[in-house]
Amino acid sequence: MKRIAVLTSGGDAPGMNAAIRAVVRKAISEGMEVYGINRGYAGMVAGDIFPIGSNGVGDKISRGGTFLYSARFPEFAQIEGQLAGIEQLKKHGIEGVVVIGGDGSYHGAMRLTEHGFPAVGIPGTIDNDIAGTDYTIGFDTAVNTAVDAIDKLRDTSSSHGRTFVVEVMGRNAGDIALWAGIASGADQIIVPEETFDIKKVVETINDDFEHKGKNHHIIVLAEGVMSGDQFAKELKEAGNTSDLRVTNLGHILRGGSPTARDRVIASWMGAHAVELLKEGKGGLAVGIHNEELVESPILGTADEGALFTLAEDGKIIVNNPHKARLDFAELNRSLSR
Amino acid sequence: MKRIAVLTSGGDAPGMNAAIRAVVRKAISEGMEVYGINRGYAGMVAGDIFPIGSNGVGDKISRGGTFLYSARFPEFAQIEGQLAGIEQLKKHGIEGVVVIGGDGSYHGAMRLTEHGFPAVGIPGTIDNDIAGTDYTIGFDTAVNTAVDAIDKLRDTSSSHGRTFVVEVMGRNAGDIALWAGIASGADQIIVPEETFDIKKVVETINDDFEHKGKNHHIIVLAEGVMSGDQFAKELKEAGNTSDLRVTNLGHILRGGSPTARDRVIASWMGAHAVELLKEGKGGLAVGIHNEELVESPILGTADEGALFTLAEDGKIIVNNPHKARLDFAELNRSLSR
Amino acid sequence: MKRIAVLTSGGDAPGMNAAIRAVVRKAISEGMEVYGINRGYAGMVAGDIFPIGSNGVGDKISRGGTFLYSARFPEFAQIEGQLAGIEQLKKHGIEGVVVIGGDGSYHGAMRLTEHGFPAVGIPGTIDNDIAGTDYTIGFDTAVNTAVDAIDKLRDTSSSHGRTFVVEVMGRNAGDIALWAGIASGADQIIVPEETFDIKKVVETINDDFEHKGKNHHIIVLAEGVMSGDQFAKELKEAGNTSDLRVTNLGHILRGGSPTARDRVIASWMGAHAVELLKEGKGGLAVGIHNEELVESPILGTADEGALFTLAEDGKIIVNNPHKARLDFAELNRSLSR
Amino acid sequence: MKRIAVLTSGGDAPGMNAAIRAVVRKAISEGMEVYGINRGYAGMVAGDIFPIGSNGVGDKISRGGTFLYSARFPEFAQIEGQLAGIEQLKKHGIEGVVVIGGDGSYHGAMRLTEHGFPAVGIPGTIDNDIAGTDYTIGFDTAVNTAVDAIDKLRDTSSSHGRTFVVEVMGRNAGDIALWAGIASGADQIIVPEETFDIKKVVETINDDFEHKGKNHHIIVLAEGVMSGDQFAKELKEAGNTSDLRVTNLGHILRGGSPTARDRVIASWMGAHAVELLKEGKGGLAVGIHNEELVESPILGTADEGALFTLAEDGKIIVNNPHKARLDFAELNRSLSR
Repeated sequence: MKRIAVLTSGGDAPGMNAAIRAVVRKAISEGMEVYGINRGYAGMVAGDIFPIGSNGVGDKISRGGTFLYSARFPEFAQIEGQLAGIEQLKKHGIEGVVVIGGDGSYHGAMRLTEHGFPAVGIPGTIDNDIAGTDYTIGFDTAVNTAVDAIDKLRDTSSSHGRTFVVEVMGRNAGDIALWAGIASGADQIIVPEETFDIKKVVETINDDFEHKGKNHHIIVLAEGVMSGDQFAKELKEAGNTSDLRVTNLGHILRGGSPTARDRVIASWMGAHAVELLKEGKGGLAVGIHNEELVESPILGTADEGALFTLAEDGKIIVNNPHKARLDFAELNRSLSR
Repeated sequence: MKRIAVLTSGGDAPGMNAAIRAVVRKAISEGMEVYGINRGYAGMVAGDIFPIGSNGVGDKISRGGTFLYSARFPEFAQIEGQLAGIEQLKKHGIEGVVVIGGDGSYHGAMRLTEHGFPAVGIPGTIDNDIAGTDYTIGFDTAVNTAVDAIDKLRDTSSSHGRTFVVEVMGRNAGDIALWAGIASGADQIIVPEETFDIKKVVETINDDFEHKGKNHHIIVLAEGVMSGDQFAKELKEAGNTSDLRVTNLGHILRGGSPTARDRVIASWMGAHAVELLKEGKGGLAVGIHNEELVESPILGTADEGALFTLAEDGKIIVNNPHKARLDFAELNRSLSR
Repeated sequence: MKRIAVLTSGGDAPGMNAAIRAVVRKAISEGMEVYGINRGYAGMVAGDIFPIGSNGVGDKISRGGTFLYSARFPEFAQIEGQLAGIEQLKKHGIEGVVVIGGDGSYHGAMRLTEHGFPAVGIPGTIDNDIAGTDYTIGFDTAVNTAVDAIDKLRDTSSSHGRTFVVEVMGRNAGDIALWAGIASGADQIIVPEETFDIKKVVETINDDFEHKGKNHHIIVLAEGVMSGDQFAKELKEAGNTSDLRVTNLGHILRGGSPTARDRVIASWMGAHAVELLKEGKGGLAVGIHNEELVESPILGTADEGALFTLAEDGKIIVNNPHKARLDFAELNRSLSR
Repeated sequence: MKRIAVLTSGGDAPGMNAAIRAVVRKAISEGMEVYGINRGYAGMVAGDIFPIGSNGVGDKISRGGTFLYSARFPEFAQIEGQLAGIEQLKKHGIEGVVVIGGDGSYHGAMRLTEHGFPAVGIPGTIDNDIAGTDYTIGFDTAVNTAVDAIDKLRDTSSSHGRTFVVEVMGRNAGDIALWAGIASGADQIIVPEETFDIKKVVETINDDFEHKGKNHHIIVLAEGVMSGDQFAKELKEAGNTSDLRVTNLGHILRGGSPTARDRVIASWMGAHAVELLKEGKGGLAVGIHNEELVESPILGTADEGALFTLAEDGKIIVNNPHKARLDFAELNRSLSR
């Protein structure tokens, strides 16, 4: 390939800029030309496509967000949108594309693959909920941002002897809550992958304040369970008598300068995506497994290790979906009591 | 005086520990003994009082929160509570007390003064809403924490072309919102000290996205106006069509390691409070004005420069209450357009 | 005035970008055009001058360094350089210039003033060593960066029972050392404005480890005294037996995202500089005094409050030069023992 | 086992406190008693041993350094020291010990194992240079601290068009330099595991400034190669003409609140060490490999996977020593040009 493009799609994540930089720099070092696509699939269809040089990604490695912007674009689920996008790419002489994003972005890459256009996916989302990789770009930063915030809440929680419910993002996955919970020494972690007994949660709070001599109680709650406000309501209904506060860390988890680890894996994955395209390989998603880079077919059968299989009715089947580490939930229980 | 005590009261603020350390170390260097009182006036009345040495405050200068804990204690508004507190102090041989806190804490100090017990107040609250000082301990840290969070939100806001309403603490004061708004380059700042026109707010959002070529819009909202959720509701009712998100920074503004400035003014005020007590002076509140330490009578007439006057009906009149810098609101308008 | 320019000169400082942004945005809001000059006076003479619009300073408020670059340019001390610079400004239709920087930058502004070209100075340097202002832009950030680093050193110092000599920048001024020393709870602070007795320094170290039960000893040393390595050598010669380490924080103090306070005063000063030029006033330096903006004549007599007076032999006399707060040195001694 | 002890030894590392906390809390949750040993093997021999309860490790998870202190103790290389240490442990009824530290600490654990006393090692060092684990506790934090500092240096480097040589710790290993170099977008990384040509280094600097249009050049140098000052001297001798600055990040890499990842692996390893002792297993070192916990015999043959083998002459043979990822050096070259 002589010319490739790169886009970011879906929710933004810290480290996306580091991945874009790696795609651009690696491609140039391999003698290829690189184009940027603004606003994901929306920009692809609209032809918002422009050449990027080496200096165009200078000093971007440390920046949060994505300088190529991102956007939801449901129209790309339709075949018309997909073909219009491919037409634009071809018009610009682009032979392959690197797609950085989460679930929805991968679905787009799957459609490009279906139509025979070479696409390589890179997992970029704070939620860590993507199949085919142990870690997604942005997850480590989001966890550290959450821990930093919970450390602050613990200061004030301890000063006042309060209970804090801290809601963290993660869509349907409990990963951010589990990691941030262990790292911040949370007293309880509530994730969608595990059931919980609200009566038991209240008993644990009471036990901490009354018998364990603790001066704070912090519950990290994954948004996939319910909202922090709703959880507080249920705690009260279940008999909580402690001085209760709710904080939703919200979108601050999406921003900020990426951690070293996110920058390293973003750089590594970005360079590898280019190597795959250079070899003419498309229809693959890059991941990290056991601290080494791996790649999976985006579309195919479960036996082939493909991320997605298209059912006869057109539905997308996710093979081997990401699972949260419930051993970490167990670990935290043994350390918080 | 040979023996003094120190307590923290009201909402905790970063830098309170630095102030406690300064009180303890300065008193010891002046040949006095120092006692700590846990949980503010509640602990005073309960006799939760203990000696602290120089090593007892080692490594505390960098810690958020207050290691003496804080608590609301409405009973101290009653004369019985006040006399019980003084009795406890006398029982421990304590001749003067340093009170670190906000409004309510100062009211307690006023009562001690009224009963002739020497108390010196130090302004500790993130809200910067205390009379008699240009800055309160914790304000600089809270503003920096808010700016750090808003910087993160801007990353994600820019990536998606979104409008963010960011609610910040401050009780009835707009100081945190004003400083954090200017420092983060907020597009609009809404504070309780100024009226606003919700239609105008929406127009400014639209203008930024449609005519100014901006890719984000950030509104910093002081909690004294209304909640972020309510404000978003009113924006929608007033015709907002931009992609709107709300984040309440909440209690994270209260925590965290204090900034250099908060540690310096806390150290400085703490040492000065001890000097006043050493000279036998009580009934005073320490403040910083024009970058120099000042002190004001806690109780007296407005002419005397006292913070509070007791009306005949027993009501507390606040003399010369704190005012937010509305010139900063004007400054921001000229820089954000 | 219809068109003004802005440059940064001398050592860079966090907050310079915030000041540039304020100059640009304020000027535009006042109906003026703004040009940026790259690399300070060097770029002025070379004609490296270009228009900047409102979007050109978007998202710059949070960035360290200066996006207009800086450079030393000794040739501007010669009249030929000065006239060549003014010629370039006039060629671009520029009627006034805002100069952001330290000592040397102010000297350049003085020369422009001498030749009748309207210049307004803004104090930008981490060293806080400029006449005519209580604080310089970048100082608060540098102090916080130093405190953050010293907090880290204390962790490791405590773990090992070590003595650390921490060298901080500041040229001939002890301000960074004094503020960072108090804020980090340093055991000793050594600044050029005060003499010290090396024997006494060693005795204090020994006393802390042997009699005070301390598990670390941190000495903050201003570079204006001597280098950290040299100081360690002298400590050893004076009989130090503690486990000694030296760290020079060096240039990290110059970088990083500016603190809220630096961003606020930079924004405020930048906007004010434009107001002065708009009124046709040049030959002034903006400062902050008693938390309000002030301005001083750059060139004139001491009686006029001018920063500089030109002696008959052409030497520059600095009127009322900046003085470090030695009361802070005293404060720290009373808190560290 | 009914009673175990825990100590930290060698250079301190962020996350050691999280590991201690995990040992204490997990042991208590398993019905065991836990003792802390101050100052590593020195404290073991001196009997500086005390019981720790669950609250004794409260709020320690976020603290840098080690609250059990650390010390070098060469006397533990002698059999007399080892036996004296074991005697002290037995006197306190301690049946097993968890040793957190680096190389030297593991040697001590090996000696305890040799004498039949159950010891379990946990890898705690910022250098990441320990056999038997992919990552050591403290490495992730040190890398992030380095990246944060280099980001700051890049601000000032860019402003002035300068070359910076940044020296980072790591003893004989290049891991910190490699990770921090990639993550900060360093222009060159020099590590002890790879040879370099100083002429080539200078050419690359010149090429960047003269042909690539870069405005900064950052070289990350591992201390295992040589000092930053020496490297700068060699650069000059090899013809460097760029404006050169040297910064040694030094001991700040050892301090600071640990990252989320370091806290998580510290918690995980600490809990696992207790599980091993509970099952009566000693003579093992815990590690992380492929994101799962593993354990290796501390003493034995290479075939058994042991970390160390004792040669007939008493020398310690390190089996399968840690290797830096030189593929990361290659990756960085492709991204920095």
